[in-house]
Amino acid sequence: MPTLYLLPVTLSDTDPRRVLPSYNLEVAARLRHFIVENVRTARRFLKKCDPQADINSMTFYELNGHTPATQIPSMLEPMERGEDMGVMSEAGCPAIADPGAQVVAIAQERGYRVEPLVGPSSILLSLMASGFNGQGFSFHGYLPIETPARDKAIRDLEALSARTGMTQIFIETPYRNNKLLTQLLQTLRPSTLLCVARDITSPEGEKINTRSIAQWRRAKEELPKVPSIFLIHVPKR
Amino acid sequence: MPTLYLLPVTLSDTDPRRVLPSYNLEVAARLRHFIVENVRTARRFLKKCDPQADINSMTFYELNGHTPATQIPSMLEPMERGEDMGVMSEAGCPAIADPGAQVVAIAQERGYRVEPLVGPSSILLSLMASGFNGQGFSFHGYLPIETPARDKAIRDLEALSARTGMTQIFIETPYRNNKLLTQLLQTLRPSTLLCVARDITSPEGEKINTRSIAQWRRAKEELPKVPSIFLIHVPKR
Repeated sequence: MPTLYLLPVTLSDTDPRRVLPSYNLEVAARLRHFIVENVRTARRFLKKCDPQADINSMTFYELNGHTPATQIPSMLEPMERGEDMGVMSEAGCPAIADPGAQVVAIAQERGYRVEPLVGPSSILLSLMASGFNGQGFSFHGYLPIETPARDKAIRDLEALSARTGMTQIFIETPYRNNKLLTQLLQTLRPSTLLCVARDITSPEGEKINTRSIAQWRRAKEELPKVPSIFLIHVPKR
Repeated sequence: MPTLYLLPVTLSDTDPRRVLPSYNLEVAARLRHFIVENVRTARRFLKKCDPQADINSMTFYELNGHTPATQIPSMLEPMERGEDMGVMSEAGCPAIADPGAQVVAIAQERGYRVEPLVGPSSILLSLMASGFNGQGFSFHGYLPIETPARDKAIRDLEALSARTGMTQIFIETPYRNNKLLTQLLQTLRPSTLLCVARDITSPEGEKINTRSIAQWRRAKEELPKVPSIFLIHVPKR
């Protein structure tokens, strides 16, 4: 029975040994067929893991937002011949916030073995470091872009956290970080806690800060244009 | 500035090199002070990572469900002297579904650096392998135990997934796995998808299966009494 391996990659320009178990590098080294979000970054990553790797002998199928859904089932063709395959995202864990989930769903339908490997997830790492409730949490991806819809989304997440105690997690593209922070500081209540986690696992060192909205307002900090993730939690009175 | 390292441990009796980056083992090897959920498992884990480790020279502070909240702030005393510390859970990632989050919250309040390290999380690994929506998901911990309350919780999660498209994730203790599965098969609609992930990263090999409720009913499978996690997703029509 062939196996579909879900292979996390680094989040930034980190050494793979910093964030990936050696087992992952062994698995990657013996696979010949990959489904990847971006062929160029996938090749570069495999070369970084093993400078001797014969990248040209490998097959890459590109699966991203531009891939027609009808093309996805045929990407698993090597598995029909009994060969293992790997799935890689552009950054972090595959099939978490990328189109890789679609090919995993097909592999599950066909009854193939699916083996997820351990790797860096900014969602999980930021939740660990926030000090917030990890017994219940929600990840929402991106918030709406338009200001009124976003304002409502922020208020809804705050109310949800107050009611359920669950941590609410969302992301933003680096160049809009400051705009989102400004809006969060205007919209949320002073006692609500906000954690901003930036540059997770980067060689420059991540910065993960939890403060109340009142403290963030006083800090008047500008966020650099780097990958960031935002978490809010309403403490019980 | 001292750092509080969040050190994941293995989920089962796996070789640490299978699920932890070598960087984690280097960090663990130079720490002298640990806040741990269980001193015995923490010592065993450190010995497994490095058989030469001088465990007796290390300080362990136990933080679990029995620890009075008033005792927690003093556990960071080595950091006040400028020394790094590590936090370890009984299994998997610290501060996700264990009391470790409380000490992380205090470290954040005091402005200490908090560095989360990569490791195995059954929540994330099962989500990756399920083929479900990873762009939005919620983790709920344990469902209520009483049958009527649990029935309502299951129906609410199904309705929430149908409305939002978000994957809903929950756990159960191994000896109640079968009871939960039976109740899920009775309560959920035939077209709803259920993923059951068992024995994640175990040396015996994990089993992660996604099927519709109708398919699960036909399969009439008994779940073994092993650590399991459950995910439901209502596909769009």
